[in-house]
Amino acid sequence: MNRELLKKELLNDIEIALEKVKEITPLVYHLTNTVTINDCANITLAIGASPLMSFCIEELEEIIGFSSSVVLNIGTMDKSMRDMIVEVGKIANRLKKPIVLDPVGVGATKARKELIERILKEVKVSVIKGNMAEIKSILNIESQSRGVDSLDNESSGIEIVKLAAKKLKTTIAITGKIDYVGNEEMVVEIRNGHKKMGLVTGTGCMISSLIGSFLGGDNSSLISSVAGVLAMGIAGELSEKDFIGTGSLKVNIIDNISKLNNDIIRLNEKITPTI
Amino acid sequence: MNRELLKKELLNDIEIALEKVKEITPLVYHLTNTVTINDCANITLAIGASPLMSFCIEELEEIIGFSSSVVLNIGTMDKSMRDMIVEVGKIANRLKKPIVLDPVGVGATKARKELIERILKEVKVSVIKGNMAEIKSILNIESQSRGVDSLDNESSGIEIVKLAAKKLKTTIAITGKIDYVGNEEMVVEIRNGHKKMGLVTGTGCMISSLIGSFLGGDNSSLISSVAGVLAMGIAGELSEKDFIGTGSLKVNIIDNISKLNNDIIRLNEKITPTI
Amino acid sequence: MNRELLKKELLNDIEIALEKVKEITPLVYHLTNTVTINDCANITLAIGASPLMSFCIEELEEIIGFSSSVVLNIGTMDKSMRDMIVEVGKIANRLKKPIVLDPVGVGATKARKELIERILKEVKVSVIKGNMAEIKSILNIESQSRGVDSLDNESSGIEIVKLAAKKLKTTIAITGKIDYVGNEEMVVEIRNGHKKMGLVTGTGCMISSLIGSFLGGDNSSLISSVAGVLAMGIAGELSEKDFIGTGSLKVNIIDNISKLNNDIIRLNEKITPTI
Repeated sequence: MNRELLKKELLNDIEIALEKVKEITPLVYHLTNTVTINDCANITLAIGASPLMSFCIEELEEIIGFSSSVVLNIGTMDKSMRDMIVEVGKIANRLKKPIVLDPVGVGATKARKELIERILKEVKVSVIKGNMAEIKSILNIESQSRGVDSLDNESSGIEIVKLAAKKLKTTIAITGKIDYVGNEEMVVEIRNGHKKMGLVTGTGCMISSLIGSFLGGDNSSLISSVAGVLAMGIAGELSEKDFIGTGSLKVNIIDNISKLNNDIIRLNEKITPTI
Repeated sequence: MNRELLKKELLNDIEIALEKVKEITPLVYHLTNTVTINDCANITLAIGASPLMSFCIEELEEIIGFSSSVVLNIGTMDKSMRDMIVEVGKIANRLKKPIVLDPVGVGATKARKELIERILKEVKVSVIKGNMAEIKSILNIESQSRGVDSLDNESSGIEIVKLAAKKLKTTIAITGKIDYVGNEEMVVEIRNGHKKMGLVTGTGCMISSLIGSFLGGDNSSLISSVAGVLAMGIAGELSEKDFIGTGSLKVNIIDNISKLNNDIIRLNEKITPTI
Repeated sequence: MNRELLKKELLNDIEIALEKVKEITPLVYHLTNTVTINDCANITLAIGASPLMSFCIEELEEIIGFSSSVVLNIGTMDKSMRDMIVEVGKIANRLKKPIVLDPVGVGATKARKELIERILKEVKVSVIKGNMAEIKSILNIESQSRGVDSLDNESSGIEIVKLAAKKLKTTIAITGKIDYVGNEEMVVEIRNGHKKMGLVTGTGCMISSLIGSFLGGDNSSLISSVAGVLAMGIAGELSEKDFIGTGSLKVNIIDNISKLNNDIIRLNEKITPTI
């Protein structure tokens, strides 16, 4: 299939995905960090889904039972979360609910590395969303990339996604100046977004909530990941046009997610799929 | 008393209630969830009261001692909260501080149901604030209402409040498209608010903080509950007039609570008391 | 040195301090409360630093290792925090990372008093930031000040800072209608700020994050404390000029911190140093 046709189909799938979220209003269970938990809840509502947060393991069989998808984010990684996160993942697997995993800071400490390894060993996740350093850490290739910039350029972004997708048997979303989202078959480059988004805490966490919302809307891992990353990229870009400061930037990002529709996506998308 | 006279007195009491909060600046202790804890603090300040949060049982005798009221919200229900919430309620009872209970999601899981039953068995609460499903769950009538819409119409809202108030010996605030707030003697219908408020996480939790603020301002359970629900309804309605997106909607709701005064209440209230 | 020359040098140092933060983007580890943790993260980003939050003691040796400074805030003081805060402080001391301590509500309960005493006994902190009641409580002089207003006037603000700095061997930042920041040698009065800032939860916590950001930018304890308190004072004052309500006030404060530059500081500062 030529690239233009591929892109046309992809955009069509993203349109359907957004419509499905707004129609179904999926419940998205989050086990997430305390820094951005409120923003994750609000972005989930903004896209048209419904957030659910609980730290009570005794009720998670029921809660995941009526949820449509699960977001696991190890951000603040307190003891309560570490004790229950693998169990939560296993429940979601048993109940066949798709999981998006946000391995925040996985390369930064041994405890994070071990936790993510434990999760990936015992739990099947549908999507892993991280920055380049996090995905490389999971692949144990961070050391090789030191001082060698080749792995950070465009072609290597695609390469790393394919490598990670193959090794981990999941869809991979790598966010950065350029985002790379895909699986073994296809990788989508997304050139939306704006560097000022990094001045708001939680834009990364919010992307995971958006991916979780699309997953809960009964969309494929690939389309959910592309749609989630693209939605935040467009919202960030549009918000930057009215930039006053970083406080209102966050408010504007949530506003723009809540206003997102297929016309806005068509008008602003900068995606390039590669097979 | 005819309905017009009743409403006149009610509005008068609400006016006095708001003035008392602003004059006294009551301290409102919250044991609440981590998703909306910041919004609860800010809405408490916005109405003119002062929020206090602590998860340290060792200091709660002192903290509740100098607080004027207590908000219990089981939203995220982590182990630490479950371990201390009944004890917190007992301390408040012993120190004669009014409690508003927000039984978030009580019908959704066994653990929530058991926790609320444990609280209601051991603690005397002044107000229970929930949506129709939560209040029905507490009354164990959720099954009967399945498929029978009669309990969801207007007359049944009033009926459920009276039933719950009688059975639980508290004031009941049921929020929804139409809010029903009252006790065995009187129920007030409130037709303020806007459905877009559901797109912001925590508007329900913030209502409980407002009720707690009015309770702390030395107002009756009935007036506090009507004033709290009405304040949020008016703020939501006014905010919706300037709707841009769901991020700014939250900011506007807090702004409108902070600007609320008796003229705005008079101009916007849509309340109907029934004896 | 005369006061004018002193002030000129001080402003020069503050300018350099802000430039250093923006150049270095220091990582600022926070062990803080759950009410304002998101605001602390966003204000840290707004000034040009980078926030790090973790409640996992197993990783804190590493995290503090690559952080530039540490913020300890006992706000919600849950068990997990109480168990680890002294250990965190000792790690920071061993790794020679400056600490700013925010002893929230220390005079209000025995548990807070004991925790702060334990921290101050075992940990060397660079800055203590509190309101007058908190600093007096640490000095055990709260009882003497009851009914005697002399300790609350201007000259006593300076006096209390010097007393506390001498006794505790730290820089002291006392925030209030007038802020007093200094050490045994110099105290700086700051008359920026606006009382409406008290209607937003977390402005105090955010000041500690700002001080932590300046400390992490390799600035002295004195300059970091003056710069942090002054930055928030100016941001609050500028935000108040566009006051609509307390929700947008918070957003505006973060916006104004993110826009802060040396011209804005020069134009708005109301500082008076005293030796």
